[in-house]
Amino acid sequence: MLIGAAVMPHGNPVLEPEDDETRKLAEVLRKIGEEFKGAEAYVLISPHNVRMSDHLGVVMAEHLVSWLGFEGKELPGEWETERGLAGKIYESAKSAGLPVVDMNFAALSGEYSRWPLSWGELIPLQFLEKRPLVLLTPARNVSREVLVRFGEIIAEVAEGSEKRVAFIASADHGHGHDENGPYGKVKESEEYDKLVMEILSENRLERLMEIPEELVRKALVDSYWQLLVLYGLLKRVPMKVRETAYACPTYFGMAGALWVRK
Amino acid sequence: MLIGAAVMPHGNPVLEPEDDETRKLAEVLRKIGEEFKGAEAYVLISPHNVRMSDHLGVVMAEHLVSWLGFEGKELPGEWETERGLAGKIYESAKSAGLPVVDMNFAALSGEYSRWPLSWGELIPLQFLEKRPLVLLTPARNVSREVLVRFGEIIAEVAEGSEKRVAFIASADHGHGHDENGPYGKVKESEEYDKLVMEILSENRLERLMEIPEELVRKALVDSYWQLLVLYGLLKRVPMKVRETAYACPTYFGMAGALWVRK
Repeated sequence: MLIGAAVMPHGNPVLEPEDDETRKLAEVLRKIGEEFKGAEAYVLISPHNVRMSDHLGVVMAEHLVSWLGFEGKELPGEWETERGLAGKIYESAKSAGLPVVDMNFAALSGEYSRWPLSWGELIPLQFLEKRPLVLLTPARNVSREVLVRFGEIIAEVAEGSEKRVAFIASADHGHGHDENGPYGKVKESEEYDKLVMEILSENRLERLMEIPEELVRKALVDSYWQLLVLYGLLKRVPMKVRETAYACPTYFGMAGALWVRK
Repeated sequence: MLIGAAVMPHGNPVLEPEDDETRKLAEVLRKIGEEFKGAEAYVLISPHNVRMSDHLGVVMAEHLVSWLGFEGKELPGEWETERGLAGKIYESAKSAGLPVVDMNFAALSGEYSRWPLSWGELIPLQFLEKRPLVLLTPARNVSREVLVRFGEIIAEVAEGSEKRVAFIASADHGHGHDENGPYGKVKESEEYDKLVMEILSENRLERLMEIPEELVRKALVDSYWQLLVLYGLLKRVPMKVRETAYACPTYFGMAGALWVRK
């Protein structure tokens, strides 16, 4: 069964917060880790692993291995895939007609069945006790409905599982918050981040469907698609939001949010 | 335009041959490298990179980075993707209705757009001068016709390119040649390898289509699907076979073969 869900950021600043807002955000991430100690498996969807235009991905490789840090921040470690759950998510999504692929690497099982992790997974995982996990990848060129349906399917599979499962959307928001940042300052980043924090705090994720494509694009986000999957999950298994926090110590917005069963 | 094609093995023994057959095979691999010095880009299809059940893959990540050696044989190095060619292969295959995905990692471009390489790519690359390359992945649960069509499309795109392109199928054959090997001794491995060497030497790849599924399965190969892609390529751009060699120093069969324009 699903025990909870979370939005977690993947920016280096949460590892060593230097301001109050970021410290509060890191505190929420620690609370998520505390709550999810009760989980036996995580389902983690990340925008910085494999990126396919129009197919969702389910990683089936046995071993998930740290490979790529951001700005030199290496976070070594190895995790195991919860292959039973991963296989069920893949099969269910495929049966439902979603554009989805199963992904292994090198060998189908055993020591060579390995998969690389980036900061997109490694930073959220720093706040979570080690558990087997299912790594999923979103896609930008599939319809909103497909992403929502994927979330519903994840919820259905998790609910049908004997394991206690927590879902995590790795996501950062607008990337145009700093005129000296790599994307400069764009007003849409602020607009999107405010709107998303309202949506998360009020637990009204259905409002994500109203956000114009143009705003998502101009705000330079890597959160929208994972949030739609989370919306699908919460549609199927409603939960209450217990914590939210936001910080923007550099050029991109970071959010933490925790949902638990009522 | 396409300047040649090759079958290359990915077993460690070709790096330090210990018997005459393997030395002869390594000599053919060196000749392939010599011939392909004239290439400006390689298209390499490998069975030991990402493995998806029923989708072909085209790696779009900018940087291809050594990650996983076999039995501790590390072969460090970094290659660049020929993204123009990769994009055209992906788009053409997709337009033709083939089940294909484009694959990037972490970031869509720049220093973080990286992709891991395994022995399946690294061993052939030891024999080839460094060039930009397109890395492709086959799939076992697509029809033979899809694999052949993929080869035709690769040939069409290469022929339409201003660059001189060489195609390489990374492939090892039966894995049941040694009763003390990990798969034991199975007679189908010998049968398959003999048949494949006949087909390659006689340059009659259309005969691949006659090989029963059961033989492919029982022979424990990781070559058949890439060879079908090669068949499609040679169907579209007929070439003559100049070199072939086979060796089986341990439990799996290895072959080298070189095709050049007539």
